[in-house]
Amino acid sequence: MGKHQARGIRPILEEIADFVLRQGLDVSLERDTALNTGITSFDALSNEELGQRCDLAIVVGGDGTMLGFAREMARYGVPCVGINQGRLGFITDISIERYQEALLAILGGDFETEKRPMLEGAVWRDERSIFEGFALNDVVVSRGATASMVELRVDVGDEFVANMRADGIIVASPTGSTAYALSAGGPILHPSIAGWLLVPIASHTLSNRPIVLPDTGEVRMEIVAGRDASVNFDMQSLASLLHGDRITVRRSTHQVCFLHPKGWSYYATLRRKLRWYEGVS
Amino acid sequence: MGKHQARGIRPILEEIADFVLRQGLDVSLERDTALNTGITSFDALSNEELGQRCDLAIVVGGDGTMLGFAREMARYGVPCVGINQGRLGFITDISIERYQEALLAILGGDFETEKRPMLEGAVWRDERSIFEGFALNDVVVSRGATASMVELRVDVGDEFVANMRADGIIVASPTGSTAYALSAGGPILHPSIAGWLLVPIASHTLSNRPIVLPDTGEVRMEIVAGRDASVNFDMQSLASLLHGDRITVRRSTHQVCFLHPKGWSYYATLRRKLRWYEGVS
Amino acid sequence: MGKHQARGIRPILEEIADFVLRQGLDVSLERDTALNTGITSFDALSNEELGQRCDLAIVVGGDGTMLGFAREMARYGVPCVGINQGRLGFITDISIERYQEALLAILGGDFETEKRPMLEGAVWRDERSIFEGFALNDVVVSRGATASMVELRVDVGDEFVANMRADGIIVASPTGSTAYALSAGGPILHPSIAGWLLVPIASHTLSNRPIVLPDTGEVRMEIVAGRDASVNFDMQSLASLLHGDRITVRRSTHQVCFLHPKGWSYYATLRRKLRWYEGVS
Amino acid sequence: MGKHQARGIRPILEEIADFVLRQGLDVSLERDTALNTGITSFDALSNEELGQRCDLAIVVGGDGTMLGFAREMARYGVPCVGINQGRLGFITDISIERYQEALLAILGGDFETEKRPMLEGAVWRDERSIFEGFALNDVVVSRGATASMVELRVDVGDEFVANMRADGIIVASPTGSTAYALSAGGPILHPSIAGWLLVPIASHTLSNRPIVLPDTGEVRMEIVAGRDASVNFDMQSLASLLHGDRITVRRSTHQVCFLHPKGWSYYATLRRKLRWYEGVS
Repeated sequence: MGKHQARGIRPILEEIADFVLRQGLDVSLERDTALNTGITSFDALSNEELGQRCDLAIVVGGDGTMLGFAREMARYGVPCVGINQGRLGFITDISIERYQEALLAILGGDFETEKRPMLEGAVWRDERSIFEGFALNDVVVSRGATASMVELRVDVGDEFVANMRADGIIVASPTGSTAYALSAGGPILHPSIAGWLLVPIASHTLSNRPIVLPDTGEVRMEIVAGRDASVNFDMQSLASLLHGDRITVRRSTHQVCFLHPKGWSYYATLRRKLRWYEGVS
Repeated sequence: MGKHQARGIRPILEEIADFVLRQGLDVSLERDTALNTGITSFDALSNEELGQRCDLAIVVGGDGTMLGFAREMARYGVPCVGINQGRLGFITDISIERYQEALLAILGGDFETEKRPMLEGAVWRDERSIFEGFALNDVVVSRGATASMVELRVDVGDEFVANMRADGIIVASPTGSTAYALSAGGPILHPSIAGWLLVPIASHTLSNRPIVLPDTGEVRMEIVAGRDASVNFDMQSLASLLHGDRITVRRSTHQVCFLHPKGWSYYATLRRKLRWYEGVS
Repeated sequence: MGKHQARGIRPILEEIADFVLRQGLDVSLERDTALNTGITSFDALSNEELGQRCDLAIVVGGDGTMLGFAREMARYGVPCVGINQGRLGFITDISIERYQEALLAILGGDFETEKRPMLEGAVWRDERSIFEGFALNDVVVSRGATASMVELRVDVGDEFVANMRADGIIVASPTGSTAYALSAGGPILHPSIAGWLLVPIASHTLSNRPIVLPDTGEVRMEIVAGRDASVNFDMQSLASLLHGDRITVRRSTHQVCFLHPKGWSYYATLRRKLRWYEGVS
Repeated sequence: MGKHQARGIRPILEEIADFVLRQGLDVSLERDTALNTGITSFDALSNEELGQRCDLAIVVGGDGTMLGFAREMARYGVPCVGINQGRLGFITDISIERYQEALLAILGGDFETEKRPMLEGAVWRDERSIFEGFALNDVVVSRGATASMVELRVDVGDEFVANMRADGIIVASPTGSTAYALSAGGPILHPSIAGWLLVPIASHTLSNRPIVLPDTGEVRMEIVAGRDASVNFDMQSLASLLHGDRITVRRSTHQVCFLHPKGWSYYATLRRKLRWYEGVS
């Protein structure tokens, strides 16, 4: 699967596909990637077909591309490997320059498996579900563009947490803790932590700090005030929420599975992405 | 002028008006306040008429009510006094219980004058101004509700500052530094500081910290990326901004003038509003 | 056990002890409490004796008093109940006014048990342990008073995390997440999260954000630079650390056990202590 | 003047000195630099002699070297130029590779002058001054290494601000706003802002946010609680402060004067030092 909007993606995909073929393996192409790049030498499959037939998904693109595709593969249990043409990402960490070496090792069974939990949730209006979705990064409720805030009542399991007035609230997985939640003031959650991050964005109450919640209970957010709020599951969005609408989020039974070359380190990725090797001054 | 939506405002306004009358002074009522409360015993004047005829504006309500009205009075140089029915605000600091004592002192000439700078700005599309406004608190550019961010090019005077990707950017006056900007991570600016606060909201770049800019140059923000951004001057809003639209902000020639009872202290207001007298634990 | 420095503690302790006696139970007094208050009507026991003979520890004081005593009781598995004379704390949540009702319920078996993980660690110099300690809140390494920073190399399990230059580093348990770590910018960790919070204090590198680490591996911090650093396990401190000294922290096999009246809620404690019911403005 | 501890500094200083000589100007060397490098071909002068005889100080080193020396030159009004061998600093912004071009322009009169305000202060015990100092960056009061906090009563001019419990308090100039104060959560202050930044470090009260104070009044901090606190004026330190000791800080009559090559931009320095050109992901 490739980020088909990227310039010059076609020859790169063809080269990687040839390389995999030469290892004696079968190659299929994700349907939209095939359509948009015009590559016709491989079977073009839907996500469902890929999920049922493939043993490994190789994704060529950045974190955004991987995010959407890995979420789809999660329900089929197909592990993903990310090859990045540009600056390495948090979850796409093999550079195009070193892909042969990395794929050889991984195809030869010499890899580390990393499972990442996913969020699964719904939006409820009058006891009816009007939206359902999965998120690998986060579920975000946001104020309407011209509203000054949204007020949300937050419950976890059968306990009331608080009413919060803010620009919005982020419920992030460990994977999402280094994405939007980090910009909004949240901490980094190691992927092995069995918890979600709840981060209010620009909260009216200064002591409404980020909280790490157990992932065992359902998180519920009810729109109490603020017109025209919206919700995003990763970037899949539903706008025009009404007072009384409830967003529920819980741990999905599916997990995303990433394969990394042996020796991969989560902390090394943090050091690289967050430039920890260099001080401010 | 009173917050006419507030329950039970009519008898309070009547009582205060009577009290001022009894001091031998004339009283007029702001037109919408008169219409909505049904008080007919005083001249009902437009903001313009109030601005031209009055020596002092007495505002009964909270900070939000004062914000909108003081902005209007600024162009006429009419000083404002705030009487608050509920929890005292940052700029409405006389409680309804103590209004007689406070007004007596102020009407007797025993007061402190506090001038607060205002922002004045416009939105430009293709060299044409499509919106103009004043703000006592802040000018805020925000991402569209379903967009992941807005990218703004920021210039101050004739210097380029940075391109910033964020949920939005706040340009706040010292008065606005204790409002939305504080929620978004900004510092408190003493009202005598000749500067604006530029606060990126949930910036993608962690080092894009709040900056205090001199108030001598014009601040310009150009929409570089991100669909459906909007801008607010205090709460007056313009939505659906386009790429290339520019928001300009500069120091207004008008200032808001507040009168406070002698002995008033800015820091005492901070201590009270931010509960500095009490620790976390 | 009582905070024996507190004024007027003697009659309160006597009253509570009498109340417990009247329920048909035996009462002993912690030795220092007995010595300092002059109460002689009960056996005065050392912590070890209390640990071996008692079924329940009733602590009269604030969070600080409870912190030190609960840490001692943890190794004997004696559960603790906190009665607070002043403002309720995070872990001492029964007011002196309501102690009878609360104790009756708890002594009658109608309580909720809450286990809190503890940190256990040591300081190593040249392969020799020169300090060992337990902490219910946090282990903190701090720069010397006149040094500009301390540089620490941080490892978790067998993985290198980063070298950090800062005023210090806090390793906090969920219990400690609402103490010093919160002041230093950390998030709140729900007590059921199996993780530690690593919070750099005033880090030179702006992207050195708080991290939630799994509690399965040992956290190691080595003094790389900065003279005269010190370490605190809760408030037990060791000063004058040298370059090369290593502080190790891991999950203790002991846990603190608190009993709460039925219906107790962690989130209610947060709302009360952090004043979430009230906004800034 | 050169950072004489730096390896390989001697030939660089000699080369720059020769270059200046060849422009027909006289060159003197700061005494410690001369002693430590062993360069004997130029007059070796004390800071006082340099201050009285020189028209321009060329400093070879980083921000730390410049900080100490520029503070000394301020009282004589000698402008400073910074040449940096390593990574460019906030105030030493000419790279060793481009020094000829930059110096030619500056010596030819083609430069921009930038004045930076300085802090001047004292420590008072029982009405007696026991320490006096200048700071270009900041005055910092810190808790003792094994104390849990210091409590300070803060006044500005004749107004009480607040009692603050924290690891310490930073009073920073605009120059210092990008140094320690930034690590502690403060905003960036443009050098033209006539204000100081007051930043509590790890404050116990979450709403004790950084404040920008006018530079017209004296800032006073009195030690109310916490043993063994210390104070630093830039890095000149006084330890073992007692309860009742007062630290006073006001705007110095001296200013530091930096010369920059034409076209120099403060914001360009921020962009470079804070890596604003690159996002997190």
